Amino acid sequence: MEVVTFGESMVLFYPDATGPLRYATSFRKTIAGAESNVAIAMARLGHSVGWFSKLGEDEFGRYILSVIRGEGVDVSRVLTDSNRNTGLLFKERFGFSNPNIYYYRKDSAASRLSPEDLDASYISKAKVLHITGITPALSTPAQEAVFEAIRIAKENNVIVSFDPNIRLKLWDIETAKPVLLEIASKADILLIGEDEGELLAGTNGPEELAKTFMSMGCTTVVVKLGKRGCYVENTDTKDYIEGYLIEKVEDTVGAGDGFAAGFLSGILRGLSLQEAAEYGNGVGAMATLVSGDMEGFPTYNQLMTFIGKRGYIDR
Amino acid sequence: MEVVTFGESMVLFYPDATGPLRYATSFRKTIAGAESNVAIAMARLGHSVGWFSKLGEDEFGRYILSVIRGEGVDVSRVLTDSNRNTGLLFKERFGFSNPNIYYYRKDSAASRLSPEDLDASYISKAKVLHITGITPALSTPAQEAVFEAIRIAKENNVIVSFDPNIRLKLWDIETAKPVLLEIASKADILLIGEDEGELLAGTNGPEELAKTFMSMGCTTVVVKLGKRGCYVENTDTKDYIEGYLIEKVEDTVGAGDGFAAGFLSGILRGLSLQEAAEYGNGVGAMATLVSGDMEGFPTYNQLMTFIGKRGYIDR
Amino acid sequence: MEVVTFGESMVLFYPDATGPLRYATSFRKTIAGAESNVAIAMARLGHSVGWFSKLGEDEFGRYILSVIRGEGVDVSRVLTDSNRNTGLLFKERFGFSNPNIYYYRKDSAASRLSPEDLDASYISKAKVLHITGITPALSTPAQEAVFEAIRIAKENNVIVSFDPNIRLKLWDIETAKPVLLEIASKADILLIGEDEGELLAGTNGPEELAKTFMSMGCTTVVVKLGKRGCYVENTDTKDYIEGYLIEKVEDTVGAGDGFAAGFLSGILRGLSLQEAAEYGNGVGAMATLVSGDMEGFPTYNQLMTFIGKRGYIDR
Amino acid sequence: MEVVTFGESMVLFYPDATGPLRYATSFRKTIAGAESNVAIAMARLGHSVGWFSKLGEDEFGRYILSVIRGEGVDVSRVLTDSNRNTGLLFKERFGFSNPNIYYYRKDSAASRLSPEDLDASYISKAKVLHITGITPALSTPAQEAVFEAIRIAKENNVIVSFDPNIRLKLWDIETAKPVLLEIASKADILLIGEDEGELLAGTNGPEELAKTFMSMGCTTVVVKLGKRGCYVENTDTKDYIEGYLIEKVEDTVGAGDGFAAGFLSGILRGLSLQEAAEYGNGVGAMATLVSGDMEGFPTYNQLMTFIGKRGYIDR
Amino acid sequence: MEVVTFGESMVLFYPDATGPLRYATSFRKTIAGAESNVAIAMARLGHSVGWFSKLGEDEFGRYILSVIRGEGVDVSRVLTDSNRNTGLLFKERFGFSNPNIYYYRKDSAASRLSPEDLDASYISKAKVLHITGITPALSTPAQEAVFEAIRIAKENNVIVSFDPNIRLKLWDIETAKPVLLEIASKADILLIGEDEGELLAGTNGPEELAKTFMSMGCTTVVVKLGKRGCYVENTDTKDYIEGYLIEKVEDTVGAGDGFAAGFLSGILRGLSLQEAAEYGNGVGAMATLVSGDMEGFPTYNQLMTFIGKRGYIDR
Amino acid sequence: MEVVTFGESMVLFYPDATGPLRYATSFRKTIAGAESNVAIAMARLGHSVGWFSKLGEDEFGRYILSVIRGEGVDVSRVLTDSNRNTGLLFKERFGFSNPNIYYYRKDSAASRLSPEDLDASYISKAKVLHITGITPALSTPAQEAVFEAIRIAKENNVIVSFDPNIRLKLWDIETAKPVLLEIASKADILLIGEDEGELLAGTNGPEELAKTFMSMGCTTVVVKLGKRGCYVENTDTKDYIEGYLIEKVEDTVGAGDGFAAGFLSGILRGLSLQEAAEYGNGVGAMATLVSGDMEGFPTYNQLMTFIGKRGYIDR
Repeated sequence: MEVVTFGESMVLFYPDATGPLRYATSFRKTIAGAESNVAIAMARLGHSVGWFSKLGEDEFGRYILSVIRGEGVDVSRVLTDSNRNTGLLFKERFGFSNPNIYYYRKDSAASRLSPEDLDASYISKAKVLHITGITPALSTPAQEAVFEAIRIAKENNVIVSFDPNIRLKLWDIETAKPVLLEIASKADILLIGEDEGELLAGTNGPEELAKTFMSMGCTTVVVKLGKRGCYVENTDTKDYIEGYLIEKVEDTVGAGDGFAAGFLSGILRGLSLQEAAEYGNGVGAMATLVSGDMEGFPTYNQLMTFIGKRGYIDR
Repeated sequence: MEVVTFGESMVLFYPDATGPLRYATSFRKTIAGAESNVAIAMARLGHSVGWFSKLGEDEFGRYILSVIRGEGVDVSRVLTDSNRNTGLLFKERFGFSNPNIYYYRKDSAASRLSPEDLDASYISKAKVLHITGITPALSTPAQEAVFEAIRIAKENNVIVSFDPNIRLKLWDIETAKPVLLEIASKADILLIGEDEGELLAGTNGPEELAKTFMSMGCTTVVVKLGKRGCYVENTDTKDYIEGYLIEKVEDTVGAGDGFAAGFLSGILRGLSLQEAAEYGNGVGAMATLVSGDMEGFPTYNQLMTFIGKRGYIDR
Repeated sequence: MEVVTFGESMVLFYPDATGPLRYATSFRKTIAGAESNVAIAMARLGHSVGWFSKLGEDEFGRYILSVIRGEGVDVSRVLTDSNRNTGLLFKERFGFSNPNIYYYRKDSAASRLSPEDLDASYISKAKVLHITGITPALSTPAQEAVFEAIRIAKENNVIVSFDPNIRLKLWDIETAKPVLLEIASKADILLIGEDEGELLAGTNGPEELAKTFMSMGCTTVVVKLGKRGCYVENTDTKDYIEGYLIEKVEDTVGAGDGFAAGFLSGILRGLSLQEAAEYGNGVGAMATLVSGDMEGFPTYNQLMTFIGKRGYIDR
Repeated sequence: MEVVTFGESMVLFYPDATGPLRYATSFRKTIAGAESNVAIAMARLGHSVGWFSKLGEDEFGRYILSVIRGEGVDVSRVLTDSNRNTGLLFKERFGFSNPNIYYYRKDSAASRLSPEDLDASYISKAKVLHITGITPALSTPAQEAVFEAIRIAKENNVIVSFDPNIRLKLWDIETAKPVLLEIASKADILLIGEDEGELLAGTNGPEELAKTFMSMGCTTVVVKLGKRGCYVENTDTKDYIEGYLIEKVEDTVGAGDGFAAGFLSGILRGLSLQEAAEYGNGVGAMATLVSGDMEGFPTYNQLMTFIGKRGYIDR
Repeated sequence: MEVVTFGESMVLFYPDATGPLRYATSFRKTIAGAESNVAIAMARLGHSVGWFSKLGEDEFGRYILSVIRGEGVDVSRVLTDSNRNTGLLFKERFGFSNPNIYYYRKDSAASRLSPEDLDASYISKAKVLHITGITPALSTPAQEAVFEAIRIAKENNVIVSFDPNIRLKLWDIETAKPVLLEIASKADILLIGEDEGELLAGTNGPEELAKTFMSMGCTTVVVKLGKRGCYVENTDTKDYIEGYLIEKVEDTVGAGDGFAAGFLSGILRGLSLQEAAEYGNGVGAMATLVSGDMEGFPTYNQLMTFIGKRGYIDR
Repeated sequence: MEVVTFGESMVLFYPDATGPLRYATSFRKTIAGAESNVAIAMARLGHSVGWFSKLGEDEFGRYILSVIRGEGVDVSRVLTDSNRNTGLLFKERFGFSNPNIYYYRKDSAASRLSPEDLDASYISKAKVLHITGITPALSTPAQEAVFEAIRIAKENNVIVSFDPNIRLKLWDIETAKPVLLEIASKADILLIGEDEGELLAGTNGPEELAKTFMSMGCTTVVVKLGKRGCYVENTDTKDYIEGYLIEKVEDTVGAGDGFAAGFLSGILRGLSLQEAAEYGNGVGAMATLVSGDMEGFPTYNQLMTFIGKRGYIDR
């Protein structure tokens, strides 16, 4: 596998209408999961990608497995836990702000991911290990698994990519901060939103943030600036890369994961930091064109067309 | 209130089609709960009924509250727990047998019901307290709440009605048996399925079962025999009461709760044991005519018509 | 036009599930109307048919018009009333008996049909005028329109066909009886259900009924016997014609209208009474194979295949 | 009850798509009714509220009853009429303007509300009686019921609140005007839209309108100015209270009823006229955030958050 | 018939959500066809219109027939081909641009339309024959049928109206250009989009385009300018006619066909070129107010209201 | 791969209701394909399976690919054709007989499968090559591909399994017969329905059929007898194996493919002919319990439970 990633994916239930969930009469089912989003996006861009997690031995776990496998991601290392459920979440949309989330993931199968669940040989053969800050929030063993995976990666010269993805519904900032900073300090590539960066680093502005994280040990820092694009910096170069103007955003969920996938794809293809950032901006923008987390991720050809035309997509 | 009952009600999600849940694309939402079913059925029959539980401070809890209140049940004693979710369940139907159930109720708000949650004055003014064997399976405090409620009832000459409703997904039979037998021994009215009875009492046949439970202290025992009707016995009389022939059963879920409601209605109206059993048979049969747990419960007039015509319903 | 008919057609709303209507969340819209059913069935069998009514100047009226016109029925004589609504009905299904009906047709546009709404020249050029007993139940002017149409038909040697279709939700039997008997006495062809016949004629059995109605003036009497088929009698011949065995009846609504259409088609094609009855049995049986009033009516070729194979349909 | 109100509530059918209703294939069912909207909104804000009406003895009436009861409104005084239907309405939406409405409410059960249907003791114990101008448009007895309710209220020092809600589909302005003006002249609190005011009073501008209505006898006049907020005046004070800016209005239906509920809640809580107007603006604005008449009404805590943040809602 | 037109209509399947079609779970069925759109729009405006095509002897063909007939269009000349399917198309919408189209129309029944399928007497009695540039793209015989129909029309002084409707998915521009120019040169009325005109004529700007096409033989040229309206020119007059401002466009599909229908209606009513163009602008604008190709076409009264109020529609 | 199979899979559209397709308003999308059914069923039973075909470069092709891959089937040899569509089919159900099928597969991408599309090395490493009689009906090159695949298999001692699956909508029996007989004569394992066998062999009865086909060269013949089970014969043994009684069959489609998968699984596991037949009967029966072609195929554990309990399934 070129890329390996792991973390919790859940079944996501969407109500049929906006407004308080108690008035919704029916719900559609899909999947959600930051790491599986990145995996799917990269598979669609043509990379070999492995994703793993721990799923309940139930229909929801089987559903998640078949969707991710169906997208062409290697799921050979997925584990199951016969004593725990697959996690769920419900979205409540008001049409004017971010949706409310109702989680049913406490003590889920995935929350029991632990260092023993890692296949060291699988990780060590990858070129990139992608980690998010959601997994260490799930449980102590899950946190240990993250650090063990990073240890294996670094021992084997696998690039460690990290997206903090701060989730304050899962842990408070005081608990999260030291853990996420420690992971960031071990990461080769840090992909971080501007707000997140300020929360973690206590400094302001893309360039200050990059400086701070590079001084901790990161070799590449990408500060995501939403529709404005991103700021990238490594030891050789630094630049602002402008984003794509999307007239009608359908759904911003999945844009950050798409950015990560596009950026890592560029890196794996040996492009410059600026070009990789352009890929990240492109995949992120295209994800917002379609409702749903991962439905809008492009193939490589679609991405090239989009980038080439600066935002016009001809599928 | 003539009747008071309590226990966990959950949001129930139905898939749009039969078959494995992973292939279902959408789900309808309704509510499920043995005690609220009995409460709703009795309210529809014209009784004043109070039901209480502990709900999450979430949209699913608000939904359950408004549905049960909408059916005319007093919900003034319902409590909420801001730290726990309202429980959920999913049904998987194959069209040829009982549905599979997937629970998301572990550590739910309702599982934290405890003796302190009881309003002694509310219970003590009721004529009947109806208890099921599901509540003591939820947690130790919930079990204590059941025994405390029974204590309050007995101290105030409130009739204690008990339906064991054995749920082997929630506890194993070894754990369940002594608890359920202890509750049964304190109950005035025991409503029990023949299979359940054999599991608990270790004896066979309606009459043997009645004998066993009456020797434990019950004053009235009703052994439910499915479509064959029921066997009733108290210190004065005993009888088999034939059931209603339903040509096209839509859904048997709710039939047992309907039976309990019909029987208790008869008792509250001062009818003979045989007549009360007839009411129980009638409401149970009518529940099977309609898909859904509680949609098929009749009004008093509908029940009279149904019983009068021995199974023909003219709504 | 070979056939002219008129009467009220309404928008019919079907709930998405069986059970009490208050629990239904959504409703599908279609149309209902005994006379338009006959018209559509005959158009599908290849006859030129005209149907008229009075519709509200509203979207529901426009809907009815386009559906019936879309089926190939001439609607050039349809009128509108800008002060009254198009009638509606809702069906409540329990899966075990006939549905409950909720009408919203009181003082509807169609209930104001009156003798002035008749185009005498249109009726007088038809070969058959088909009348049902629903129209005279709608209002006094509608009743007068029925008698006037019959008068025009008889004056011009147009065959008058009559199906009483007794609707006790619209009028009581005391009011209905003399009116329906008067119409029957003026009809050339009477198509009547056995139960209806007994209600109107006070006699029992197909042969007695035929005798009674022929003594009133009918030249042809068809007593419909449900799945057993029918009994036919005219001045020359009489016979029982066996029905078709349908293993899985989807919906019996529309079967009577289908029978009428099939029988009249046979008559218009110059077939024997027995053959026309066979056509009636066939179209009626085929209507029950499909849910919905008129979706199951066959083309002539389909009917021939069905009859030829005694019940097997190869569409 | 702190508040008592009464009037017609109907079952509302929404098409599944925008455009002419004849092309809609399915319809969702919900309820509509200005007075029940106010009752539900006030119950959600924490007040004890009673609403009554006359419903058909049909499934649609039972549905309305359970929804309103489910929202926590006292429905103990609701009556039924076994000879009349519950009223219906259909909405046709074009996405660019107010929806078209198709009523099926002529001679409905609620239109037969009459003075005898009033429970004088129930009204006399309330703090506020809320009346709309829809009820007197339904029929002569309904109009008499309105005047009788006002008489009872005034005799018992119950505050009379009045929202004209002019419905020109139910009566013409010539008929409506004297009736509505007479009610207005008897009301303590008049809540009126600017356009409505001009139609009734023949004067222009909020201040002129307030002057006119106060000279008729009102003690408090609130002129609603849509998104601009409102103008309030009583014998002590007068003020313009700015409205909330809502970026993405989902549905304005229910905003006026929400305003009334918020304003009356403020009055009942003993707030200043300005503060009560702020509550009215807040509830009205929040109603527009959610599709549906009453789904968007806030709890007291939600309202406080919304007002505190001048428009930002954290549910 | 005042107007005769012909061409392929297909069953159109809409996914239930935006985004790539492979994620859509269900599809709604409707019809699509430029010529049938014009026919339906003109029928709704009060003209007698005939449309014909060749349909498969299948359910999809029967569906198309009943929809178009239901709209009041004469379909008496429609033919069927028992060896070929009715064509289909699927739309994939992204919410930000024109939908992608997936055709299943190769070798469809309609693609086999040929000169022998024309009823010369039917065409020769019309006032207007309306042709689109889609039909000649379907096959050689279909192209021949177009030229033969034009020949018949011209021989009988029937006005030939032509809308090129260039479809580059069906043929390439090199093949299309000479054919469409030849048809244009024979047309009396040419209705052409500005972009299309440039593609065909190689000149720019409405006036240049009109000049070019009039020099080829057209007597009336209408250059459609989208929301800006249109430019019209004939031998007597020329003018720019401003379009209608539509705040919220639901769907632009059908606007061009609506324009054609409105314009031809004006011509048939004997209006000036400017007035006819105003009608065209009006019907085209109204089509965009409603999702769906033909649901938004107005009646004559609705068009008059819309035009009279310069864009405000009161249905 | 243990098993390799290939053939056309199509997108299947199901109407939302029974009855003629022209009245259906919406359609659900799933996939259909005899060979992919077998592949999915065997993957679920725990075998490594490869399936290939030629898909259009369109969304429907991508959908088929992700579903089959999601089920755990190797799709690495699937090809695409950028000039042809992926095939479609529509089902029309009447609830009383087999559904009508409307194909849109003429000249589809899969119909162009040809010998050059075969990866000889992929086939030669399999233990079983499974072929159906549908592929040779698609086109001459597809037929050649079948014979070439068989040649490769036999050259490499890969067992050839053949299910004729006669489709008279694709070719007539005269054309089909010699081709299918030639394939049968080359097959090691022939799985054939009794009716099919009689059509091909011209003899009657399971034993006669087996004799005939074995004399042609088959080493194992399985005659499928529907719910009665099957007759199996090879050079060593022969037997009737009784089928499973299914009380409520949901859908028989997929049962034959399930039988093939179960039987081949038994053979691959080295079981006796009788045991393999039992597996076949089991999987076939379980497929009928669930609506949909492949949703009902069991895992190995589910199959064991089903067989162990002779028809009772505990999922």
